[in-house]
Amino acid sequence: MAQATASATIGDSEFDRDTRVTRAEPGLYHADLSAGWTIINAVNGGYLLAVAGRALADALPHCDPFTITAHYLTASRPGPAVIRTETVRTGRTLSTGQASLVQYDDSGAEVERLRVLATYGDLDALADDVRTTALPPSLPAVDQCFGPQDAPDVSPVPGSNAITDRLWLKMDPGTLGWALGAPSGKGEMRGWFGLADGRDADPLSLLLAVDALPPTAFEIGLKGWVPTVELTVHVRCRPAPGPLRVAITTRNLAGGFLEEDAEIWDSADRLVAQSRQLARANLG
Amino acid sequence: MAQATASATIGDSEFDRDTRVTRAEPGLYHADLSAGWTIINAVNGGYLLAVAGRALADALPHCDPFTITAHYLTASRPGPAVIRTETVRTGRTLSTGQASLVQYDDSGAEVERLRVLATYGDLDALADDVRTTALPPSLPAVDQCFGPQDAPDVSPVPGSNAITDRLWLKMDPGTLGWALGAPSGKGEMRGWFGLADGRDADPLSLLLAVDALPPTAFEIGLKGWVPTVELTVHVRCRPAPGPLRVAITTRNLAGGFLEEDAEIWDSADRLVAQSRQLARANLG
Repeated sequence: MAQATASATIGDSEFDRDTRVTRAEPGLYHADLSAGWTIINAVNGGYLLAVAGRALADALPHCDPFTITAHYLTASRPGPAVIRTETVRTGRTLSTGQASLVQYDDSGAEVERLRVLATYGDLDALADDVRTTALPPSLPAVDQCFGPQDAPDVSPVPGSNAITDRLWLKMDPGTLGWALGAPSGKGEMRGWFGLADGRDADPLSLLLAVDALPPTAFEIGLKGWVPTVELTVHVRCRPAPGPLRVAITTRNLAGGFLEEDAEIWDSADRLVAQSRQLARANLG
Repeated sequence: MAQATASATIGDSEFDRDTRVTRAEPGLYHADLSAGWTIINAVNGGYLLAVAGRALADALPHCDPFTITAHYLTASRPGPAVIRTETVRTGRTLSTGQASLVQYDDSGAEVERLRVLATYGDLDALADDVRTTALPPSLPAVDQCFGPQDAPDVSPVPGSNAITDRLWLKMDPGTLGWALGAPSGKGEMRGWFGLADGRDADPLSLLLAVDALPPTAFEIGLKGWVPTVELTVHVRCRPAPGPLRVAITTRNLAGGFLEEDAEIWDSADRLVAQSRQLARANLG
């Protein structure tokens, strides 16, 4: 089954247009947060990280986010945003930067949405060695997986979810029990991932991909939103063209918080990204 | 077997004295990095994070690091240091702050050592619910584990290692093959952990504990130092008194970088901390 019928390219796609940043002066960028990447009426955290990550890619002498952390401070809204970056350190192979994404409230007061700290490098400059013991997730074939387009009744995300039109998401039915009222109790979520317009993955779109599946909390039997406190992504390899496999695991739900560990594998069976987020659980 | 013969307490111990920070003005702290926490002549990254974390605990309205990330910029040296903190956001249950730890070179120029971004809360205010699927690591009894004091020939860390005198570390012999010239090839390191003077663990000392075992790279067969690029720690629960169990895993060594995932369990079988770091591997 084809990943998508359209064939947008890296640099010319919905994702690229909606994460565009314009440099107003050194270190200062303007962006326009799109309503197209909202999920349960909230702007997706991975999309926000990609916007900030694109500003840092421009501000720093290196282009790829090797490790990037965001702390989510207040809820972003679609519309104009400003990203201020600071170059913390530049080195030969790595550089470190910081970014603040802010918006303005109705009175014109500045409100910070997220604070980002990251170290960038050049993935193409890395050695070819791989000594991984990690194995790709076991996923059924794409045509045995399900997305929101396959059946309205098993839409992976309830509520307003414009983002589902932008994504090509085929979830492992073994992690969709919650959508049928029978969550497995296991904190696992797995699926095939791509962009609906056929754009292939790059390091910036991986920042979106780690946070784009339904929350593992749904399979644990919790309902409602699971707001991210902090998200850290390690991009380990430039992804090959083709669909990605995303596997997310939660092992510890305690005290009203849980971690979500995501890993992303590309079509060449390379582990291209690892992430962890701390999120609040809705126990009500 | 007793954890330690001495009986220092939280607030009155080597760790507390050596991570002390003095507020010079709001948000500005002085510290004196101790030579007692060096390992292969480098100041331990977890110790540095604890120093910065203590400054943030003072600067923010909440006391416990729920999630804290450090990017290591340049090599710290024992001696005076200054920590500048910024309060990014304060909320009712969580607050977010940032810290820079700087030192001064021979010409008096400021050199930043690490940049930290963190969200703090109050662990004692969390609900008691635990729905974890994670299991404690399987570790042999303490008297079947080995530390640097047990046999000089199997010292877990070669070179100058003042820190070993401050730690009570009993390594699982199943992860000490490298010390006998026969690394297992598996990226695993496990051991019992405490402070040599008998001080019990608290959230700040957990920041040290996640980074205090020998590098997993040694068991993969690599030699030499494994410098941390970035370290993120989630403290999930206030640790109970008694020894900790620390298990560290590396699944992906690729392109000259590897991740180290640590988890820490307390004597009450609670998962008290999870961490991940991105480090450079020495493939030479």
